[in-house]
Amino acid sequence: MTDDIFDSSDSVRSARELKYAQTMTLDEPLTLELGGCLRDVRVAYETYGRLNEARDNAVLIVHAISGDSHVARHGPSDDPGWWDILVGPGKCVDTDEFFVISPNILGGCRGTTGPNSINPDTSRPYGRDFPTITIGDMVELQRRMIDQLGIEKLHAVMGGSMGGHQVLCWATKYPDRLRGAVALATSPRLTSQALAFDVVGRNAIQHDPYFNDGQYYDSDAGPDVGLAIARMIGHITYVSREAMHKKFEQTRLEPREVPTAFEKKFSVGSYLGYQGDKFVERFDANSYIALSLAMDLFDLGDSDDCLAEKLAVSKCRWLIVSFSSDWLFPPEQSRQLVDALIAKDKPVSYCNVHSNCGHDAFLLPDELDSYGELIRAFLSNLDGSAPGDAATPSRPQPRSTSIFHMERLDYDRIMELIPPGVSVLDLGCGNGELLSRLSERGHERLIGLEIDEKCVLSCVRRGLNVVHADLNDGLAAFGDGQFDLVVLSRTLQAVNDVEGIVQGILRIGNRCVVSFPNFGYQKLRDMLYKQGRAPSSTGVLHHQWYNSPNIRFFTLADFEDFCREKGVKIHKRIGLDTEAAVEVHDDPNRNADIAIFVISK
Amino acid sequence: MTDDIFDSSDSVRSARELKYAQTMTLDEPLTLELGGCLRDVRVAYETYGRLNEARDNAVLIVHAISGDSHVARHGPSDDPGWWDILVGPGKCVDTDEFFVISPNILGGCRGTTGPNSINPDTSRPYGRDFPTITIGDMVELQRRMIDQLGIEKLHAVMGGSMGGHQVLCWATKYPDRLRGAVALATSPRLTSQALAFDVVGRNAIQHDPYFNDGQYYDSDAGPDVGLAIARMIGHITYVSREAMHKKFEQTRLEPREVPTAFEKKFSVGSYLGYQGDKFVERFDANSYIALSLAMDLFDLGDSDDCLAEKLAVSKCRWLIVSFSSDWLFPPEQSRQLVDALIAKDKPVSYCNVHSNCGHDAFLLPDELDSYGELIRAFLSNLDGSAPGDAATPSRPQPRSTSIFHMERLDYDRIMELIPPGVSVLDLGCGNGELLSRLSERGHERLIGLEIDEKCVLSCVRRGLNVVHADLNDGLAAFGDGQFDLVVLSRTLQAVNDVEGIVQGILRIGNRCVVSFPNFGYQKLRDMLYKQGRAPSSTGVLHHQWYNSPNIRFFTLADFEDFCREKGVKIHKRIGLDTEAAVEVHDDPNRNADIAIFVISK
Repeated sequence: MTDDIFDSSDSVRSARELKYAQTMTLDEPLTLELGGCLRDVRVAYETYGRLNEARDNAVLIVHAISGDSHVARHGPSDDPGWWDILVGPGKCVDTDEFFVISPNILGGCRGTTGPNSINPDTSRPYGRDFPTITIGDMVELQRRMIDQLGIEKLHAVMGGSMGGHQVLCWATKYPDRLRGAVALATSPRLTSQALAFDVVGRNAIQHDPYFNDGQYYDSDAGPDVGLAIARMIGHITYVSREAMHKKFEQTRLEPREVPTAFEKKFSVGSYLGYQGDKFVERFDANSYIALSLAMDLFDLGDSDDCLAEKLAVSKCRWLIVSFSSDWLFPPEQSRQLVDALIAKDKPVSYCNVHSNCGHDAFLLPDELDSYGELIRAFLSNLDGSAPGDAATPSRPQPRSTSIFHMERLDYDRIMELIPPGVSVLDLGCGNGELLSRLSERGHERLIGLEIDEKCVLSCVRRGLNVVHADLNDGLAAFGDGQFDLVVLSRTLQAVNDVEGIVQGILRIGNRCVVSFPNFGYQKLRDMLYKQGRAPSSTGVLHHQWYNSPNIRFFTLADFEDFCREKGVKIHKRIGLDTEAAVEVHDDPNRNADIAIFVISK
Repeated sequence: MTDDIFDSSDSVRSARELKYAQTMTLDEPLTLELGGCLRDVRVAYETYGRLNEARDNAVLIVHAISGDSHVARHGPSDDPGWWDILVGPGKCVDTDEFFVISPNILGGCRGTTGPNSINPDTSRPYGRDFPTITIGDMVELQRRMIDQLGIEKLHAVMGGSMGGHQVLCWATKYPDRLRGAVALATSPRLTSQALAFDVVGRNAIQHDPYFNDGQYYDSDAGPDVGLAIARMIGHITYVSREAMHKKFEQTRLEPREVPTAFEKKFSVGSYLGYQGDKFVERFDANSYIALSLAMDLFDLGDSDDCLAEKLAVSKCRWLIVSFSSDWLFPPEQSRQLVDALIAKDKPVSYCNVHSNCGHDAFLLPDELDSYGELIRAFLSNLDGSAPGDAATPSRPQPRSTSIFHMERLDYDRIMELIPPGVSVLDLGCGNGELLSRLSERGHERLIGLEIDEKCVLSCVRRGLNVVHADLNDGLAAFGDGQFDLVVLSRTLQAVNDVEGIVQGILRIGNRCVVSFPNFGYQKLRDMLYKQGRAPSSTGVLHHQWYNSPNIRFFTLADFEDFCREKGVKIHKRIGLDTEAAVEVHDDPNRNADIAIFVISK
């Protein structure tokens, strides 16, 4: 098919032999989490690049429900893999640098033991006798494989969707075996909505009259209709409404001529019929049931506390990525993971990549410049070197909530205010300049919050921990007194809920450093008083009253009044005249254009 | 079932006889839009209340895919109907006042001719021989029923979801036959996503081996599994992710003990199995196919222009309601309808009701205070009386984007600036005070935009046309020069995209009246200059710099500069001192606290 509406993430074709797959058979049975064990378990896997002498450059890539071991092509003549855009020589997961291992997962149907494998007890395919497996069982098999490959510690484990569940499981079950965890488009457990779709899919398969209670391997016909229906439902959930609109809306009544017995009245119908039929050719219905059930049973807990406890044992660094239009594994669920890691002081970076592609975004090239580069940057900073070493030159911040980010003349002064070694949360951290300086000075517990996606990437490139978030959504993720110091530099004037943010930083930080433009500065007063014009800041971006990102106008004295009114302790008050580059001691409310306060509860 | 997780909008039980249904048989065949005709067509309907002597108080209620004629109970001992919360004596659709007619739709299976009816040509059920029907055919049958009931003009036609499609069809096919159209949770055509779910549902039914090409009426078994699967898919799409979370998340692993053969591993699974089984007991699979296909074929066009052309013939007043969490018929689609009606100067009110209930919200009590009261207010203002007559006393605006709404001392002056009879668009119209005054003065083409849901209801109660919208989302709905006058009173200081909004109003209005608080007012200047404090407005709500809804600070002179810079013509400039309640002629930039400008391109 070359018709572009039939392009999909489903790049594995039925006819292809997995000719590069190696196999390994476990010498000991695999004991399963929900009881029972499997004997003679086989795992099919492919590798890319070379394991270095230190045996410390291995990256394990684990696939989602319909994937397999063929993550990338092995050469120009090979078929593309399902993550070809990401994995290969010079690519974001650079196989010139890393030794990539990609296994087919337990319960799959592409070489690793699954329901269509021969049951050694009966010499027939398992079928209905295949036991209920879990994500933990998949990871246990992968761990045994890694053991047999003689790898003590993985550089990273990475995966999306159900692959992300395996990553979460790796980091909590074998915390000493990986340096980095990359979890894309995933969740602590499925939403009830996602679970519901899976249930309907399984019902369609299991009530197909050809399912025959799972023992269809000897028959001429299997539960093809049921599996195709399940796949169609899945396909709808993998893409966003916007993506479907773009793909089908203009040709709504022009179905493609595809050889399917399913309804073809609408273009989207012909697409679904085609996808359903193709899936049946290459996938085993029992596998689909086993894997979707394992995913549905995966559960790191329904409460934030429970989730945090589960993740508390992890020892790796984390990169969590969600996609804004993913409604199957919505961004809130990734944020739950991030918040739980934050609560336990785990080193985590997070980005909610803006995308119209839905859940499938992590398999598509559209946002590769964002998620792919985040992965590249994260992997390159996992070697234990001090954050900042691997930094690309710091670049001007492309879109900022503050008018002042490009000069940051107050950073020197703020640096002096921060005692050595303290933990710091930098709210509105931009491209990470302050955090990098702190890191270079030896501070260890550092994390930034930043609204701009490109700035988040800059921070990750610098090896910093950064969370992509909007301050206006609040600071509930952070615990009481979690940081020695919270920095809110030149950001307060751009937030909506000033009281909420100030309350938040006072709760989180033992001390807080707040800086902001002072609209009591004489030049600004003169503008209003003498010229009758709105005070316009002298920042380099030259915003006007009608297009400024700043929405709160207040003076140094206003802020002092505010602190008094709210019972906030002021430990230090500094006025800067950034034009003259001097600290102002005489009447700072009039003579300083920037104010810096150190405050606490 | 009394277990609350099994409550649903599906309140029609299989065993109940529709004992109050009356039937009518058409004397002439029904010619169908896509070819063919049906003979001896029967329609089952129920009525509530009494037709008045003028025969002008009839409200036609049309149901969605799985509904029937039993919209409400006929007395205390009767079973509840599917819209019992809305329809009845004293209720929002008050059967003491209105004569409600509720037919089962064409193609249904509850009394009106459908695939399970006897085909007069064969004396057997139609089955596969039932022709493809359309929403237009359903409406044609309803029109014939209304004719036979001797009703020339309906007070209103109302419905949600596919019922909304019928409303849209009524208003465009028989524009002279209704005064009001109430369309809830509907769309100009299905999204590709919604269409895709329907396709999968039909595939599940039609590939059920018991479907037997639609001729299963003589068999012991029908396509029960397929129909149940289709219903399960439907159920998921009718509720929001949030609603599913609330309903199932805490009891995820505690399935209810329901007698179903479907998977019951999770609580949501037992719910879906139960719903699937119940539906099969009361609904015919061929009907489901016929009705869902009719819905999928409904299409008012894929472009805004096409849609506007289709709606241009309508002569009724419109109430369009969407629900914020409805992802099957998303609010954008209702806005498309609203925008098309606006483009053709049709009288329309719109509200996007805030709800967590998803598509089903229009059947549920949760937001009845909003959508139900909107319907009540709309129906009571359809009698042709001048808007404003039926107004409830105007109340203070609960949440407003402006600090000044409660005093509105500038309205008198603005009224003077508006020439008699001109058409007016009031942006940020609050509870409709200015528009009501204009209406009382005889202006006819009036419409307001308002962000606050409660204010929208106030406007509808006053008989005004009002569109629930956020100015920050832009004004693309309105055409170039569509209004004689656009009013933007005391709102500009609260919008983010000042340039965009000003460009918008200049494009739409031949003249624009803009009023705003003047931060050049002497008292405010003094505050900054002499006291070193942010100018704080003197509005009654006493906002502070940190919690003001105002985010743009500018003076009368700033606005003049802005107009000069952007090439905007200033026709009139008025300064008001609202404390002294006088117009200011001397140095208004210093002496006026409110500025009013009349501007144009």
